[in-house]
Amino acid sequence: MAITLEKTIEALLNGKKYATLRDILMTTNEADIAAIFSELPEENIPLLFRLLPKDMAADTFALMDADQQELLIRGFSDNELKEVFDELYVDDAADIVEEMPANVVKRILANTNPDTRKIINEILKYPEDSAGSLMSVEYISLRPKMTVSDAIKRIRRTITNAETIYTCYVTDDNRHLLGYISVRNLLLSEKEEIIEEIMETTPIYVHTTDDKEDVAKKMGKYDFVTMPVVDVEMRLVGIVMFDDAIDVMQDETTEDIERMAAISPTEESYFKTSDFKHAKNRILWLLVLMLSAMFTGKILDYYETAFSALPLLVGFIPMLMGTGGNCGSQSSTMIIRGMAIDQIHLKDFFKVIWLELRVSLILSLALALVNGVRIMIMYWNNPDKLALSLVISISIIGIVIISQIIGCSLPMLAKKLKLDPAVMAAPLITTIVDAASIFIYFNVAIKFFNL
Amino acid sequence: MAITLEKTIEALLNGKKYATLRDILMTTNEADIAAIFSELPEENIPLLFRLLPKDMAADTFALMDADQQELLIRGFSDNELKEVFDELYVDDAADIVEEMPANVVKRILANTNPDTRKIINEILKYPEDSAGSLMSVEYISLRPKMTVSDAIKRIRRTITNAETIYTCYVTDDNRHLLGYISVRNLLLSEKEEIIEEIMETTPIYVHTTDDKEDVAKKMGKYDFVTMPVVDVEMRLVGIVMFDDAIDVMQDETTEDIERMAAISPTEESYFKTSDFKHAKNRILWLLVLMLSAMFTGKILDYYETAFSALPLLVGFIPMLMGTGGNCGSQSSTMIIRGMAIDQIHLKDFFKVIWLELRVSLILSLALALVNGVRIMIMYWNNPDKLALSLVISISIIGIVIISQIIGCSLPMLAKKLKLDPAVMAAPLITTIVDAASIFIYFNVAIKFFNL
Repeated sequence: MAITLEKTIEALLNGKKYATLRDILMTTNEADIAAIFSELPEENIPLLFRLLPKDMAADTFALMDADQQELLIRGFSDNELKEVFDELYVDDAADIVEEMPANVVKRILANTNPDTRKIINEILKYPEDSAGSLMSVEYISLRPKMTVSDAIKRIRRTITNAETIYTCYVTDDNRHLLGYISVRNLLLSEKEEIIEEIMETTPIYVHTTDDKEDVAKKMGKYDFVTMPVVDVEMRLVGIVMFDDAIDVMQDETTEDIERMAAISPTEESYFKTSDFKHAKNRILWLLVLMLSAMFTGKILDYYETAFSALPLLVGFIPMLMGTGGNCGSQSSTMIIRGMAIDQIHLKDFFKVIWLELRVSLILSLALALVNGVRIMIMYWNNPDKLALSLVISISIIGIVIISQIIGCSLPMLAKKLKLDPAVMAAPLITTIVDAASIFIYFNVAIKFFNL
Repeated sequence: MAITLEKTIEALLNGKKYATLRDILMTTNEADIAAIFSELPEENIPLLFRLLPKDMAADTFALMDADQQELLIRGFSDNELKEVFDELYVDDAADIVEEMPANVVKRILANTNPDTRKIINEILKYPEDSAGSLMSVEYISLRPKMTVSDAIKRIRRTITNAETIYTCYVTDDNRHLLGYISVRNLLLSEKEEIIEEIMETTPIYVHTTDDKEDVAKKMGKYDFVTMPVVDVEMRLVGIVMFDDAIDVMQDETTEDIERMAAISPTEESYFKTSDFKHAKNRILWLLVLMLSAMFTGKILDYYETAFSALPLLVGFIPMLMGTGGNCGSQSSTMIIRGMAIDQIHLKDFFKVIWLELRVSLILSLALALVNGVRIMIMYWNNPDKLALSLVISISIIGIVIISQIIGCSLPMLAKKLKLDPAVMAAPLITTIVDAASIFIYFNVAIKFFNL
């Protein structure tokens, strides 16, 4: 549907049907309009933006891609710039400022009012991955001695400047967080009740310096729409909104998945990343893994006499290395994801090893059996080669067990060493397991055939 | 902190300090209490549950694990069961009923009132992955002709039965969805304004039969706290809450990650899954991949004369297969995740291939160069083996390009065929790429050394 609408809009723009365009924009959600902007030719963007009703313009602007925002800002008069930035939530404005080149930032700050400028500068001071950089500073605060009807009056008065009203925070005169109350509970209460008697006082909050991933997890745990952010002196300084927390969760998951595939994570989207950036994000691990695979090659070279005497051995290398790699990556994936969603903790280390050991016994016996039978059928008429089925089966048992133990323990060790467990995923595990597989296989074969 | 609290609670339970326990529970969030329950010995669960204040008991119950819920229900008198289920939101009750064995379900339904029972049965009729199975049926609906003050009165009256009040839905007498209005806008408006003049009419909703993953994505796109669910006749039948949507997103991501590691996804958590279930979830793909790796082995067997004549060739097999596998899994991961978060669409097929081709050229040349130089240094005094550096470099170029093209195209083909793209991830890609790598490598070597 979005595509058709985009085509229609382009046609209307070309035909200068501005009144019709305005009607269409007014009945379209801001997120959809922002998506349309990203598909339009550059020259149409300022024109269409100026057709937006004033109350939708800022919201749409906040949802657009950074390069389109920059294009628009460069085309804005000082007055237009001021109008848009006055309408934006301050945390959105700070996010935009962070993405812009220095000369654009200067113009933006010159055209915002001093109060806003001060808050933007303060938000930009927080470390990039902190709760402080994520929070919104426009929330509703109430005082403990207010009555419910005072509170509702205050909400009505400050509502236009607040990003959310669903949860109101109760603070003392020095802004210390005392508790919170939802609009729902306010509406449920009698008008003359006192806030401090009906507010929730369970102290759940985050600090400005907390990692934003932990903030998102905490919000998910408690199903909070907003999470209060306090400074070291427990003063309320902002709130984190659920939609920003969802974005953090999604970005962190993408990072994890990319790390698990040996890619250095970036913030840019797939098509917005340049070819060289794509290559740069992938080359480091490819080189590391390539060079460590040479080590496996060295181990293979060491067994040259064995496979020269019995070349049939070589044909089983891909299957054995592959099975080891797959078992290792299954185990490491279960552990990495389990830790990411807080189902597995470091204290479970031995519990995990013991579980994986039991599972690896079941798996290795099943795989060894299937393989043994298959090779026996293949070489039924050749008693010499029939012995191979036993070598392969024994090797598989050893390889599967070792691979699963390596696969489950390395991500936990990484976490213990304060590294990202996702780094210990399939590619690295596979390379380590490959070497172990070759070692086990040839030692079994040499013992068995006296090579 | 949770662990310390749990130990304290156990000590207090043993010391029969019930008054103290009750005080602690009252200042603790329900999600934390549910987490404590999951750590307690079974015999303490009913006792601690009975100490919970009435208004917290149902919320805590809804957040507990299914096995603990079952334990409690089996211990409840009919009266206690009725009390807890009367307090639960109907969609939570339906979720619990779904997890319980038949005899427990029978007791639950016998002890809920007829209206609730009817709604539970209706929710259970929706397909497991549909919006209908996810939705809540307790929302606030307004009529178009109401004034703002009528609306606020109605909200106050129906608030206790609604899971959320932040967005109120406007319906006609036949429950057709006409629009929505937030409590925020109600509070901002004059008391005598008419709802249909101030409500939002942008029609964003989902159908009861829509896939719950699509519902979660749509809510993320529009940053909705609640999403209305309509039936085929456009009648409002429920709403999906943001916290349930977040759970869906997280579960779907876990499923994707597990599929990408060749594991059949389950809904149970890591430690709650039995050893045999773990083995069952992993064995299928291990078998498939093991047998297809035999195919790579067959290709290797075919080149026996080549590596018997020049055994040095064997040592490079792990490096070449590994590099191909890693390149393929990097590409497939980028595409699978890109499609999951809607950054890459099927219509981008050729754009993706072209991008990956360009990136693969950069990567392959860099890797070929590093390898060529390394082998030249290794075998500097041996002109014969020096030629090997050229064979390896040329093979790498071919392998990297082919691997990335396979890696990026297979997930998109899977999607085109309405399969889950995540199935086409590292393990399968690696197996396919292994065969291609061996084929390229030995053909280059045979040409070069006239083997």
